[in-house]
Order: sequence, then structure tokens, then C-alpha cells
Amino acid sequence: MNDILKTLETRRSCRKFLPDMIKDKELNAILEAGTYAPTGMGKQSPIIIAIKNKELREELRKENARIMGMKDDFDPFYGAPVILIVLADKNVGTYIYDGSLVLGNMLNAAESLGIGSIWIHRAKEEFESEFGKKLLDNLGINGDYEGIGHCALGYIDGERKEAAPRKENYVYIID
Amino acid sequence: MNDILKTLETRRSCRKFLPDMIKDKELNAILEAGTYAPTGMGKQSPIIIAIKNKELREELRKENARIMGMKDDFDPFYGAPVILIVLADKNVGTYIYDGSLVLGNMLNAAESLGIGSIWIHRAKEEFESEFGKKLLDNLGINGDYEGIGHCALGYIDGERKEAAPRKENYVYIID
Repeated sequence: MNDILKTLETRRSCRKFLPDMIKDKELNAILEAGTYAPTGMGKQSPIIIAIKNKELREELRKENARIMGMKDDFDPFYGAPVILIVLADKNVGTYIYDGSLVLGNMLNAAESLGIGSIWIHRAKEEFESEFGKKLLDNLGINGDYEGIGHCALGYIDGERKEAAPRKENYVYIID
Repeated sequence: MNDILKTLETRRSCRKFLPDMIKDKELNAILEAGTYAPTGMGKQSPIIIAIKNKELREELRKENARIMGMKDDFDPFYGAPVILIVLADKNVGTYIYDGSLVLGNMLNAAESLGIGSIWIHRAKEEFESEFGKKLLDNLGINGDYEGIGHCALGYIDGERKEAAPRKENYVYIID
């Protein structure tokens, strides 16, 4: 098995992060891998917002917890210091698939660098709310973007576990 | 840059395939990488149908071309000998994202083995039609599955091109 296949098969979601910021070099490599994900007709419908800023990360945490129906001090991002938000342009028919592939590439890129990552949902709801609209406004982002998901990133706190067994009948081969 | 990052960034969609069947070992490695994609709450909502059978591939080609509004002899799969169809269980909230990640892992796994691949759409429409329902019936697959996409696979015919430049303002970093 080559290193790529091994990475794809042993990657695991991280649910306990160290608070330390990852290196810019690591972050940039992960972001770059995201931008090279395939997109429908090569239209590159997604954008990525990388949040390192502590105050904004805290606002995002609260908004995500609120949507989730959790208490105000709950952290849906498991303490990760970096949150990557992927959004995609709803005017492109393949936007949800496109944005998902960007997230998938970033999860796998993080794994290849030994950095913990996990997909966190509720980005859709965040950008339907005033919170998200204001965030886009502040960045000068116009257009019809839907939140696809977050990739929380950071160094892993604790031991890595193995993947759960795959379900029966995941694959059907017709010879 | 490690080999994984390189694979993620240099993978390209293949639009010209040789007709030769890929090796079982290669196909199985690609399928396995797909099954290890992350899924919402680890629910493994997708399934993968791998079509090697020539007659069924031909029926699928016709159905896909029909949905596309193309002539009866058009091949939306660019001559690829293997078509992987990913579907996902609509009862799981994250099913579209889950299925997309399965496809993403398979595209990257193929690339790591030097095998050409491309995401082809219209799986959703295929499985809303009688064609798709009958296919699932014949395989004994029950449940509420939506077609997410196809990964066409085969050996590459011709030279590889480089990826198009990435758009400006793909990434916003908030320090």
C-alpha cells in the first residue's frame, strides 16, 4: 500500500486538540491542497475562510453552539485553534459536492502532516444567520454563498485510535 | 511537499481513457480508500456500486446520456471501462457530504496509483428513474438512496495536463 492510500485509510477525526497554533507553513499546505480539489466543470465554486484569530474563533464557537442548541460555553470545535470554513457559490449546480471535496482534501492534507482535523457541520445555518452575513460583509465577500462545513485543525492531544470497522455491504462489484 | 500533498495538488480529471480493464488489485485499493472516507457521526451512509460489466456499463452510459440530453451514442464517461457509482442514504442528514467524501477519496486513491479518474454527475437523476430503481432491486438493495456521483476509472490515454490556475481570492486568512 502506498503512502497516499495509507493516509486515506488511516485518517481519523480528532476530538481533542492542543491549544497551540499550528505553523503557517502547515496551514498554507493544507489550504493549498483544498484549493486543488476537483470542482464541477473546473468552476472552483468554493471559498475558504481560515480563522486563527482568537476572538473571532470564540464568536464562531458561540454561534455554532447556539445553532446546535448547546450551552453558551460548549465548544463544538473540540478546542482546535484553527477553524477553516468552506462556503460555495449556490449559483453553481455542483456547489455542495465541490465544497465537500475541498474539505476532504484539507482533512487528508492535515493527516499527511500529522495534524489533527475534523469536519464540523452547521456552517449552512451560520451563514443563513446575521452572524455569517456580517462576517462575509467584513471580508468584502459578495455573492450567494452557502456554508458547506468546517475543518477544525490543530495538534492532536492524546493517542490516535483506529478507524471503526467498515459496514457490511458497503461495496457491490458487478463483473 | 510530501507525496500525499503532491497527489492532492496534481490530480487531474481524465477525459480520455484506454479501454483496457484495470487490475482487480487496483480497483480494490480504490474502493477500500472510498469506504474509509469520513462520514457524519461515523454513520457510513454511502454505498458504492462498481460496474465492470460491459452490458451494464452500456446501459448506464445510455441512461446518463439521455438525462444529459445527448444523442444515444454519446459517452459521458469518456470511454472509461469501470464506473463507480456512489449513493447515500437520504435518512442521514449528512448524506450528500458523506457521499462526496467517498468520491473524493476514490479520485485521490486512483491518482496515487497512476489511474485516470473523473467525477461524472447525473447519478441523482439516474436513481430517480426506473433504470436506477431496477438496478438497486436487482442487487437486493433496499432503502432510501440518492445518487451522489460517479467516478469513472481507467488507464489514461495520452499526456497528463497541468491543473488550471487557481482563482484569486480562494482563501481568506483571518489572523
